[in-house]
Amino acid sequence: MYTSGKPRAKPHCFLASLGMKQEGSLRVLVKGVTDLEPGDHVLPVFTGECKECRHCKSEESNMCDLLRINTDRGVMLNDGKSRFSIRGQPIYHFVGTSTFSEYTVVHVGCLAKINPAAPLDKVCVLSCGISTGLGATLNVAKPKKGSSVAIFGLGAVGLAAAEGARISGASRIIGVDLNASRFNEAKKFGVTEFVNPKDHDKPVHEVIAEMTNGGVDRSVECTGSVSAMISAFECVHDGWGVAVLVGVPNKDDAFKTHPMNVLNERTLKGTFFGNYKPRSDIPSVVEKYMNKELELEKFITHEVPFSEINKAFEYMLSGAGLRCIIKMDA
Amino acid sequence: MYTSGKPRAKPHCFLASLGMKQEGSLRVLVKGVTDLEPGDHVLPVFTGECKECRHCKSEESNMCDLLRINTDRGVMLNDGKSRFSIRGQPIYHFVGTSTFSEYTVVHVGCLAKINPAAPLDKVCVLSCGISTGLGATLNVAKPKKGSSVAIFGLGAVGLAAAEGARISGASRIIGVDLNASRFNEAKKFGVTEFVNPKDHDKPVHEVIAEMTNGGVDRSVECTGSVSAMISAFECVHDGWGVAVLVGVPNKDDAFKTHPMNVLNERTLKGTFFGNYKPRSDIPSVVEKYMNKELELEKFITHEVPFSEINKAFEYMLSGAGLRCIIKMDA
Repeated sequence: MYTSGKPRAKPHCFLASLGMKQEGSLRVLVKGVTDLEPGDHVLPVFTGECKECRHCKSEESNMCDLLRINTDRGVMLNDGKSRFSIRGQPIYHFVGTSTFSEYTVVHVGCLAKINPAAPLDKVCVLSCGISTGLGATLNVAKPKKGSSVAIFGLGAVGLAAAEGARISGASRIIGVDLNASRFNEAKKFGVTEFVNPKDHDKPVHEVIAEMTNGGVDRSVECTGSVSAMISAFECVHDGWGVAVLVGVPNKDDAFKTHPMNVLNERTLKGTFFGNYKPRSDIPSVVEKYMNKELELEKFITHEVPFSEINKAFEYMLSGAGLRCIIKMDA
Repeated sequence: MYTSGKPRAKPHCFLASLGMKQEGSLRVLVKGVTDLEPGDHVLPVFTGECKECRHCKSEESNMCDLLRINTDRGVMLNDGKSRFSIRGQPIYHFVGTSTFSEYTVVHVGCLAKINPAAPLDKVCVLSCGISTGLGATLNVAKPKKGSSVAIFGLGAVGLAAAEGARISGASRIIGVDLNASRFNEAKKFGVTEFVNPKDHDKPVHEVIAEMTNGGVDRSVECTGSVSAMISAFECVHDGWGVAVLVGVPNKDDAFKTHPMNVLNERTLKGTFFGNYKPRSDIPSVVEKYMNKELELEKFITHEVPFSEINKAFEYMLSGAGLRCIIKMDA
């Protein structure tokens, strides 16, 4: 689910960031927030970019030491307090953004300033899973034109990974899912072939190796299932294959493979938020949409007004669609 | 052990390649071997490069479909026969090169034509382990100048990996070995710090993480021990760390790690012969030695005449040194 509308453009969202609203003067506010001005359009992102730490200074990482996703914190970094309350009782913040709200207080490091011409009720889906899948392919797997790519899991993240493969010019995009009903929708995202592991007696990595003369060039795993992760690794071609893990596993899972699968020149990589640095990179993903290189409309299957937000949860829980937009100003 | 001397320069070594000596005319010989002429200096390599298969045509792979290492074949590819015999009985070829012999018959795809000014009794060590370790660092781990690198296993391959880190300008090269006697020698190869897992109660990846503020930038594993492989992976920094496996594991080993170690943007790669394509790349490694960028003398701890070849085996079995040169013409 994604919210769109006023809160993303409200100037006080970012002027209040860094928790300065309560404690600082206007001068401090301006000093603390130099990258944004009232009226800017922003996307709030669940993970941030401080631009100062070793991760932010590394070209390769987006795992900011200060603002990396934290689902437990629930308070502002500077004073350990919440900016929300109801009847005098604090309400905790949610993954740094708290966007199921008409107004919010966000660390400036979690706000990507974007093209003001971009429709917020479309590009808001770039704040999380769509960028995650897209970036897993474009930034990490990096398939060459004409190559073969296997996508494990055809939910919204996997379909965004497929969209990345389509944009890259992959000639074969093989979708793998246990639910055959995903296959029809996946065609819209460039998926050319389908494998349902339930249809085969042999392991899915062997099925894919047979289909592709030894393995795919790239694979992207978007399920969170450890067996899918292992298959995604073992189905890439020796010599040059790259497998990228995206799905979040269970606590007690173990990724397990014979070391020869690695030694035969396969590469295993993991990614978080598609390796996009929120502030530095997300504006350019918005531009991909504006240039019609990236299609976002096909990810948006539902829209509800804020007053009907619980419907959005129902769609999510029932798997009724891909992404539901919550209109804050409707 | 490495042989050097006449056999590597004898013209019939390569004119006889492709098994044409027995069955073809001179015209066929010339047609079959176009890249080499009598008098060329060559290094025979245990794995080959046909220049025609998908692997050879891929920029990323050196795992030639036709000439990839095969320790069991023991015969020429074209007719399934051996070119060696004793008292009428065939003797099998050894990993495509059979260099413990004054004359040999080698597939042209396993011969790297090198600078004739290069001393064969030095550069012959580039035919196997030294290139393997060196290339693991230079071609696969690719540490940046000033970065930190951990090397697991300080035998000749690991020390060659350290040499690669030294050439790359790594600022910290951490050697890991269970045998403390390796540490003194390793200093010659640029190793700056040592960790003996036996000296610590906690896992070695935690020891290294503490030494390096969260992990090394790169690691290269040259032991073949699966626990070292896992440690080598888990000791690289999240966000950008790359671990490269080189050592050959046992048949029943399993590489096992929690998937979050991957998802936190670590990369696991494997390499074979340091990703060098024998014919295309090894001549340039010889040039690195000629330009004094790469030091080879320090790998050569012993020399024996061919008549004393069994001494070379004794040195190897007792771990007395790193590399022993067998002088074929002594």
